[in-house]
Amino acid sequence: MNPLAEGIVGGSRRALARALTHIENQSPESESLLSELYPHTGRAWVVGVTGAPGTGKSSLVNAMALAYRRAGKTVAIVAVDPTSPFTGGAILGDRIRMRDLSGDPGVFIRSMATRGSLGGLARTTRDAVRALDAAGFDYVLVETVGAGQSEVEIVRTAHTTIVVEAPGLGDDVQAIKAGILEIADILVVNKADRPGADNTVRALRAMLELGHPTRVTAMHHGRVMQIETPGGPEVVEHDPYLWLPKVLRTVASREVGAENDGIAALIDEIARHRTFLSRSEQGASQARERIQIELYDRLKQAVFERALAALPPAHFDAIVEAVVARTLDPQQAVLQILDA
Amino acid sequence: MNPLAEGIVGGSRRALARALTHIENQSPESESLLSELYPHTGRAWVVGVTGAPGTGKSSLVNAMALAYRRAGKTVAIVAVDPTSPFTGGAILGDRIRMRDLSGDPGVFIRSMATRGSLGGLARTTRDAVRALDAAGFDYVLVETVGAGQSEVEIVRTAHTTIVVEAPGLGDDVQAIKAGILEIADILVVNKADRPGADNTVRALRAMLELGHPTRVTAMHHGRVMQIETPGGPEVVEHDPYLWLPKVLRTVASREVGAENDGIAALIDEIARHRTFLSRSEQGASQARERIQIELYDRLKQAVFERALAALPPAHFDAIVEAVVARTLDPQQAVLQILDA
Repeated sequence: MNPLAEGIVGGSRRALARALTHIENQSPESESLLSELYPHTGRAWVVGVTGAPGTGKSSLVNAMALAYRRAGKTVAIVAVDPTSPFTGGAILGDRIRMRDLSGDPGVFIRSMATRGSLGGLARTTRDAVRALDAAGFDYVLVETVGAGQSEVEIVRTAHTTIVVEAPGLGDDVQAIKAGILEIADILVVNKADRPGADNTVRALRAMLELGHPTRVTAMHHGRVMQIETPGGPEVVEHDPYLWLPKVLRTVASREVGAENDGIAALIDEIARHRTFLSRSEQGASQARERIQIELYDRLKQAVFERALAALPPAHFDAIVEAVVARTLDPQQAVLQILDA
Repeated sequence: MNPLAEGIVGGSRRALARALTHIENQSPESESLLSELYPHTGRAWVVGVTGAPGTGKSSLVNAMALAYRRAGKTVAIVAVDPTSPFTGGAILGDRIRMRDLSGDPGVFIRSMATRGSLGGLARTTRDAVRALDAAGFDYVLVETVGAGQSEVEIVRTAHTTIVVEAPGLGDDVQAIKAGILEIADILVVNKADRPGADNTVRALRAMLELGHPTRVTAMHHGRVMQIETPGGPEVVEHDPYLWLPKVLRTVASREVGAENDGIAALIDEIARHRTFLSRSEQGASQARERIQIELYDRLKQAVFERALAALPPAHFDAIVEAVVARTLDPQQAVLQILDA
């Protein structure tokens, strides 16, 4: 076994940190390392936390980590910043991480910023989560900022996805939520002690009900009371095959020793989702689907690299010039390359 | 020639609208259509306008379109919404478009929302811009919301990229700007009549100077006064090979008949950037680089489709199951598929 892989599985933080650097740089070593780590993965529960800037995601993630630590669980935090494609600056950086967590050997924190494409960052996150999983952490919390496709790609690593909102972020932000609501297993209104929290909770509940119009005809506090079946509406107390996201309220603060509120309920809801995924077999189909997507992505990259290696650079350059000059269109250009 | 392509080149709005629907749906017809349109492209100037929610991008784009119309130019607007991957709702939609523009045959407006991946949206935008270019519009304004990688991909269609800011959007938004600043050819502080505009302008200028630390040691109102050369600092009035983004102030309003401010200076700056790109040969290298990226993307997709067509589905499914069961790792799985 690769000594670095051995170190990680054996619990060495130093080996882990070095491996994460390899992964972040997508160095050649990282592939064989991940290959060796892969059989040791599959034990950690991965929770994705996403939402717009200003919702207090980092504070929430810190509060969740503290709660897991109090329950004797180990936690790794990956803070992913998809918004900075060039500077590589990590705005979610460790710098604002709570002093409550620092020095605790049961916690591991890592920031990752975009290097290259968004697809690259999603891949790096997935691989980093695998390394942390192999290192034996009970929970891996993946935190990501932004609003849009970026989170969708990044949270694909998570078993449970939490979308965080906060009161009073304005109309535009409200509109953006429509898209990411659909990736949420749990919705959290953080900063719930602020004015307007009731409105935000109400708006989210209304959007959730709109999102399930054909299946759920009546809801009460997030529990299904009536669903549409081919035989007509049917009242149920609990449907094990249908997960309906709840809207929870939290108050998570950056201040040391400050009161956090609603975190225990959130932790419970994550546990409930975990149970749901395993009992409903939906967890297995989620895993299968993600592996399929990953293999497609890897295959795409691999066949492309082979094709490129077989293509003489001068020939490619000549084709580029012809397309720039508009004597050849891009569609025909690719056919010419493939024929060569 | 395809009758739809003929209609577009001949100036039929109806043909154009139908073609854009084909492009948006990535229908099989769209590829041959784009192939025929390609020789008719290359005349429009494409301006990308991006920025966080709340900066007033749509109003600014409308004001720019009005200014171009007054100068006798035709304008197409593509409003791209990368934030809504599932619902397909166009939050930048035509609904809020100014009545000033409606009914004007020299203006064409189209909204596009994400269907599928972000990469898909960037491709759709690029193809839509080509159709609008072939249709003979003098300017194509591509407007996109969000903060991060999404704009970077989408503005790759633009010759001139404008990043819009507004006063008082909060710290988090400020932090996000760091990444997208680097794609800006022109920075605009919109809503410049609001409190805090001076601070926003100052902050952006400071960030710009940070972004060019080795090259520019002194700046005065966006003009280079002194640059670092291997022989030491050198004072120059104007360097034709160096474009330094300026920070402009605008006040663009949605109200009919309301006073817009700073738009003429923005239009002038776009013209100046256009001149710069053609004189410095940087325009040609920008075009070449983008064609290269496009051909790589198309080639990747084409070889992947060929590989997939050659792969028996049962074989692929068996490999997926092995990876899910962790008896095979993803790296090895791809090698097995390629060997088969």
